[in-house]
Amino acid sequence: MSLILKNVILNKKPCDIKIEKCRFAQIAPAITPNSADEVIDATGKAIFPGFYNLHTHAAMSLLKGMGDDKELFSWLSKDIWPREAKFNADIIYTGTKLAMLEMAKSGTVFFSDMYFEQAAIMKAVAEMGLRSAVSIVGFDMFDEKQTAQKMEAIKAFLDLENPNPDLIKKVLAVHSVYTVSAKLIEYTAQTARDNNMMLHIHASETKKEVDDCKKEHGCSPIVYLESLGALGPSTVLAHAVWLDDKDIEIIVKNQVKLVTNPGSNMKLASGMFQFDKLSKAGCIIGLGTDGSASNNSLSMFDEMKMCSLSAKIQANDPTAASAEEVFTVATRNGAQMMGIDAGTIEVGKLADCMLVNIDNPLMIPDNNPISNMVYAADSSVVDTLICNGKVIMQNHRLADEEEILAQAKTALKYID
Amino acid sequence: MSLILKNVILNKKPCDIKIEKCRFAQIAPAITPNSADEVIDATGKAIFPGFYNLHTHAAMSLLKGMGDDKELFSWLSKDIWPREAKFNADIIYTGTKLAMLEMAKSGTVFFSDMYFEQAAIMKAVAEMGLRSAVSIVGFDMFDEKQTAQKMEAIKAFLDLENPNPDLIKKVLAVHSVYTVSAKLIEYTAQTARDNNMMLHIHASETKKEVDDCKKEHGCSPIVYLESLGALGPSTVLAHAVWLDDKDIEIIVKNQVKLVTNPGSNMKLASGMFQFDKLSKAGCIIGLGTDGSASNNSLSMFDEMKMCSLSAKIQANDPTAASAEEVFTVATRNGAQMMGIDAGTIEVGKLADCMLVNIDNPLMIPDNNPISNMVYAADSSVVDTLICNGKVIMQNHRLADEEEILAQAKTALKYID
Repeated sequence: MSLILKNVILNKKPCDIKIEKCRFAQIAPAITPNSADEVIDATGKAIFPGFYNLHTHAAMSLLKGMGDDKELFSWLSKDIWPREAKFNADIIYTGTKLAMLEMAKSGTVFFSDMYFEQAAIMKAVAEMGLRSAVSIVGFDMFDEKQTAQKMEAIKAFLDLENPNPDLIKKVLAVHSVYTVSAKLIEYTAQTARDNNMMLHIHASETKKEVDDCKKEHGCSPIVYLESLGALGPSTVLAHAVWLDDKDIEIIVKNQVKLVTNPGSNMKLASGMFQFDKLSKAGCIIGLGTDGSASNNSLSMFDEMKMCSLSAKIQANDPTAASAEEVFTVATRNGAQMMGIDAGTIEVGKLADCMLVNIDNPLMIPDNNPISNMVYAADSSVVDTLICNGKVIMQNHRLADEEEILAQAKTALKYID
Repeated sequence: MSLILKNVILNKKPCDIKIEKCRFAQIAPAITPNSADEVIDATGKAIFPGFYNLHTHAAMSLLKGMGDDKELFSWLSKDIWPREAKFNADIIYTGTKLAMLEMAKSGTVFFSDMYFEQAAIMKAVAEMGLRSAVSIVGFDMFDEKQTAQKMEAIKAFLDLENPNPDLIKKVLAVHSVYTVSAKLIEYTAQTARDNNMMLHIHASETKKEVDDCKKEHGCSPIVYLESLGALGPSTVLAHAVWLDDKDIEIIVKNQVKLVTNPGSNMKLASGMFQFDKLSKAGCIIGLGTDGSASNNSLSMFDEMKMCSLSAKIQANDPTAASAEEVFTVATRNGAQMMGIDAGTIEVGKLADCMLVNIDNPLMIPDNNPISNMVYAADSSVVDTLICNGKVIMQNHRLADEEEILAQAKTALKYID
């Protein structure tokens, strides 16, 4: 299978790009159309890498707008948990599809998920043709019976069939230090090391989490996680809002990856990620939207803008978190952090990309297209999405859009 | 001229809405189609009020992305002023059209503008069919010759023909206390009072502005403006980031209106508007995008989300600036502040509204459509825009879109 993008704009200049199987094979002023199985006329469209959403809870798309503007605990206990209790594998499959529809339409090719019912999620991802890191979540509420059950569940997850290993990476997760016992954290971290898997953890999201951890364990969540063997180059910490200098030193030393979720952190008034300080300290940073219940958008356009703007306010410096840096965080960094050989438009790289309408007023003037992508654009600029060399969307529409929406509406009646 | 919106969703229920001339005339379960000149089948679309963008510099759309992530002075002197020096009436006409195209496509029916070449701007607005407050800007850099010239220009502006008084309101403006002499501020304020006009002022945008004003005049910009007779119910202060308790008391006492521009304030690291405190103190607040050079989007969707999220962080309270409050600020408040009898979908009100695709995944689930509009939606949900009873856009396309873009591209070559 080969595909030519004819007359596409790359770095403000038109060219032809050939994709063979799943990779960019040739970039040249003109490539003979009959040398490929398919040709897309990309006149008037610019190519950019797709977005890598490094932290979300996809199926929570079904809970969007159900309880906003509330205190965290009242929101969780009255709005979220009672509805999540009605979730089953079918509903999670449907919610994941709805989330992927929104993500595809806003240029996202990959999402790192943390939710329940991994088989259903992997089925949805494989059908959709996007990339994902699907995790099983360590979560035991310090109850020994649950600890044992979860250990068994993790073992079973290792054996669970991956319907498309090219697109889907199985990873392990620890919900947080305030919901998971030391025993289960250690077990999950050890299992990740033994199986060469990544480890995804919510850490230092709120001041309360850090204060409580200090009371309970005499140290910050970062120091505590390090003591349990949970920090290393394969660990990805989501949120990481409340870090002190010692935490930062540990993160850099262990080459731990960080994911910032500025929209969620602002909406829940959790705090602002120290983007500029952490970037300058040498931390490796990716960008995520968090789930739809706490953002409420899965658009990486929204998230890039909030990432840059909140970083500037946080650092009191308009030069912090430039458009170029944030765009790199949302594309190349995200791919690299997840071990995906993609994130840039270069021969040899996996063909994950979007085509953007350059005649959308959001993209005009084109003095600085990256600035337009970060500060001005929204999902309406995305015409075409290609993931792993396959066309997922054209003309801003997916083939099975109506079916996904109909299924979502049925699921919503069930959980309401 | 009459128009029926057939089967449109209002507050989650389908109905028919009749518009006669420029106002909503009837809202009923079913209205006979042949009782109107035109019928729009609005099946699958929900009606919302249009947005009122209370502070922008529209023609700066041509400067979008030209110098981001810089210190304010370096940005103005190296990137903005040299290009603005090349602006003439034709370029400003074209830039205003480009801005209105972006605004219409993201649901905005009104913008309060502060720029040069008022005749060109009014011509553009009248052709487009949106509403605007067009101001002449007091700006003399404390140079007596310029003061005298500007006074003459203000007199001439009073006599300038308004091509469509139904849509366009002529207002006066003072750039700021750090660029305008006391004499010109007093003259502009007096002229506004004498002619029953509104007065638009940038005030207390940065800490430096406040500190410098205290050094120069021994008081804050708000106290200084009050001493010059510039504060009253017809005064609209843009930014108003750095207000102390005395300032707030003066603002409330004088019924001065405030406009927050969260995107611009964050991008330039100016600070965060005290939304929750000011709202609770009884201040009347509208929302604006500021110009494209410092945001870089004119989308009120972006701006509503940043308004709410920055307010929550600023107040350290997730319940601050709820979706409902921020949506009201962006619609009804904006209209009321500008004396426009619109901003809600009610019989008798001016027919300023948008139709939104409810099958866009950003609007699903529809548990709380207002939350979706504020936290999840972007310009891609807007199908139809109606201003003053006239259809400006359908199917997310304006009739003269190509022409506006072609003119913008020509203008860009000239200023580059």
